[in-house]
Amino acid sequence: MRYPDAIQNALDELGRLPGIGPKGAQRITYWLLAREDQDVARLTDSITQLKETISFCQTCWDFAPSGEVCRICADLRRDSSMLCVVEEPRDVMAIERTGEFSGRYHVLHGAISPMDGIGPDQLRIRELLTRLTDDDISEVILATNPTVEGETTAVFLAKSIKPLGIKVTRLASGLPVGGDLEFADELTLGKALEARREL
Amino acid sequence: MRYPDAIQNALDELGRLPGIGPKGAQRITYWLLAREDQDVARLTDSITQLKETISFCQTCWDFAPSGEVCRICADLRRDSSMLCVVEEPRDVMAIERTGEFSGRYHVLHGAISPMDGIGPDQLRIRELLTRLTDDDISEVILATNPTVEGETTAVFLAKSIKPLGIKVTRLASGLPVGGDLEFADELTLGKALEARREL
Repeated sequence: MRYPDAIQNALDELGRLPGIGPKGAQRITYWLLAREDQDVARLTDSITQLKETISFCQTCWDFAPSGEVCRICADLRRDSSMLCVVEEPRDVMAIERTGEFSGRYHVLHGAISPMDGIGPDQLRIRELLTRLTDDDISEVILATNPTVEGETTAVFLAKSIKPLGIKVTRLASGLPVGGDLEFADELTLGKALEARREL
Repeated sequence: MRYPDAIQNALDELGRLPGIGPKGAQRITYWLLAREDQDVARLTDSITQLKETISFCQTCWDFAPSGEVCRICADLRRDSSMLCVVEEPRDVMAIERTGEFSGRYHVLHGAISPMDGIGPDQLRIRELLTRLTDDDISEVILATNPTVEGETTAVFLAKSIKPLGIKVTRLASGLPVGGDLEFADELTLGKALEARREL
C-alpha cells in the first residue's frame, strides 16, 4: 500500500533533514498528524522566519538578523585585537560555550578541499584579509577543524597572514579531557606527545 | 552568548519533535540556514499540506485525505470479512509491509490505560462495534501491542465482540524471527513455549 500523497511528501521532505532517516521521518509525520494545527503552524512559522530574517553579519559572516551586525561584533566589551577563525557558524557557539575566549570571530563557511572544488575563493578569506588590513588585530587564532581540510586551510591562512606582521596561533591538538589513553587513536596520541608541556 | 531570536525559536520548535534533542535541532537549524529558500519552502509546505489535507477515514479511522475513505477501505479487492484492529495508524503500515493480510483495518487511536485516563470511550471502540453490527465480518484479529495496555484492550474487545458471534483472534506472541533464544526475555520465551506448535 502507498501512503496518501500529502503524507508521502512530508515523509520525503523530513527524510532529507540531517540525522533523520526514513524511520525518523515516519515517526515525526505521525506525530505531526496527531498535533493541534496551531502547534504545527508554530513549527513551520519558526522555520519560515528563520529563513526570512536571518542572514550574515557583514563583519564576521556568522549568522545574524538581516541588515544587522551579530551580537558579538556589536559588543564593544569584547577584545577587538583577538580574532578567532572558524569554519562554520556552529563552531562560534562551540567556542563561546567554553567561556575562554573574549575576542571576535571570522567564519570562513567551509575549509579548503580541492577534491570538492573548494579553494580559497569559495571561502570568506578575502573578507578576512581585508579585516586584518583595516582593523587593529594583534593575534589570529586558527580554529579550523583538526582534519585534512582544516589543517590545509590553517596552513594556507598562516602563510597569508604572517607577512602582515600579525601573530598566528592554532588550537592545540591532544587527548580529549576525560578521555582514555588506551582508546586514543595514534595520530591524536602522537600530537599529544609532540606538544607535551613541562609541569 | 544567546542566539538571535529567530534561530532560538527554530531550535525550540525543532527540539520538540520526537527523536530530536537539542543537538539534533541545532544541526537541522544550521542545515536549513545553509539551504536555498525554495528547498526550505518545500519542507514547510509539505508539513502545512499534511495538516490541511489529511484527516481520518470515516470507516477505519486511519489517516486519509479529508472527505475521502482511505485507500484500503476503497479497495474492493480486499477481503471485507476480515478486520484487523490496531492501536495506531503506523501499525497499519507495519502489517501492510508483511504482505500477509488482505483484509481491512480499524484504528483505535490508543489503548486502554486507566493510569493515563484512557478508557474505552476515549478510543474508536464504539465505531468498531457499530461496524461489526452493520458489516458482514467473520473474523476480528486483535493486533494491539503485546504490552499491558494492548493486552487489556484486547481482553476488553474480545469480551465485547464474542457475544456478536464473530471469531476473535490475537496476534501470536513468541520469539522474534532471527532472534536468539539466549537473549529472549523470560516472558517472551514463556509465551513461545506455551504456544508451541507440532511439526
